[in-house]
Amino acid sequence: MKANEMMDKDFIYVYPEDIIADVSVKMEKLRRFTTPVVDPDMKLVGWVTSLDVTRGLREGIKNVSGIMHHKEEIMSIHENAPSRLAVIETSKNKLISMPVINDNDEVIGVIRSFDIVDTLSSLYDVKIYKLYEAMQKELKGVTWEELMEASAIITRRTTGERIKPEDYERNIRNATFGEAIWATGGLEKFFVGLIAVGELVIAIKIGKARK
Amino acid sequence: MKANEMMDKDFIYVYPEDIIADVSVKMEKLRRFTTPVVDPDMKLVGWVTSLDVTRGLREGIKNVSGIMHHKEEIMSIHENAPSRLAVIETSKNKLISMPVINDNDEVIGVIRSFDIVDTLSSLYDVKIYKLYEAMQKELKGVTWEELMEASAIITRRTTGERIKPEDYERNIRNATFGEAIWATGGLEKFFVGLIAVGELVIAIKIGKARK
Repeated sequence: MKANEMMDKDFIYVYPEDIIADVSVKMEKLRRFTTPVVDPDMKLVGWVTSLDVTRGLREGIKNVSGIMHHKEEIMSIHENAPSRLAVIETSKNKLISMPVINDNDEVIGVIRSFDIVDTLSSLYDVKIYKLYEAMQKELKGVTWEELMEASAIITRRTTGERIKPEDYERNIRNATFGEAIWATGGLEKFFVGLIAVGELVIAIKIGKARK
Repeated sequence: MKANEMMDKDFIYVYPEDIIADVSVKMEKLRRFTTPVVDPDMKLVGWVTSLDVTRGLREGIKNVSGIMHHKEEIMSIHENAPSRLAVIETSKNKLISMPVINDNDEVIGVIRSFDIVDTLSSLYDVKIYKLYEAMQKELKGVTWEELMEASAIITRRTTGERIKPEDYERNIRNATFGEAIWATGGLEKFFVGLIAVGELVIAIKIGKARK
């Protein structure tokens, strides 16, 4: 995924000579906590957050140029850069948002932290059920019942919990990937459990084929 | 993971009778774009964002009570609630942050969107290599070389790319889970690829055992 697939295209922008009070109205109206500062060609020249605006209003500073962070001091990301770079910077520097620029240094969007949350969380929302369906499709010749039976056996072996295949099926109908990795204690453990299930059903499948 | 494991404990808070100009200084100094409004017992009574503060400063409103959103209008999350609820609300309502409360309605922290990004992205940063190590450990009797050989075969079969086991190993040394799911086109596809690898090495393993 590229930066330009995760950005807000309805971003606001301001000019260095804009009046701070007007900028504050614009930001409030459109609920934007940050705004890029651009020149007449839309080239990035700076960055303003609502906390710069409160200082400007309080101290009676008139223009955006008096409160903005200059281009050199801020993070920006190229539209074709991998979006995970934006994720890393947001997380490391606790950013609210960052501008997305093209080859000409023009601002074409803004990536906001909640846009990132939106993208990342959609992964977490994948139903475990879907992963099992993909697994069954890949493991040709294994029935759904065999898969649930194997999962119940592995769960009993791992957790000691006396779970039946039908309980297991009900659990994965509702659970998401995010819940499962938190419940199992991390991606590696979740994954090891699935490999164990895979190993068991494949052993059953090969056993059947040799009969 | 619970809400209280993901929250900022160094949050700021203000009282309804606080002077807005003072609050703005506090928010700027500690770089907080939002703040809970509490009563003397730390009970949540409202919420203020830096965009409410800019309006207050511009319109000459004196106290926090004149700009705050009342408790009933805002999202909060119980400290023991699953943190994914905070993720869902942040993503759905494009929130910058939300207060975390305990059984007594006291504010004990704030979950910020970049804290969520931080937590979610740590999952993405798991090295694929680690998953393969976990896989090898689970599949007792399968060597690392067999695993790489099987992965190269499956990759060739799926993508047509003429990849050697040593190329595959080099790829997974550097790649993260996040890169892999974006490269393969989603969690299910990534997962199907791994199951295919698992099936192949298990078939090899069982074949060896029967010799």
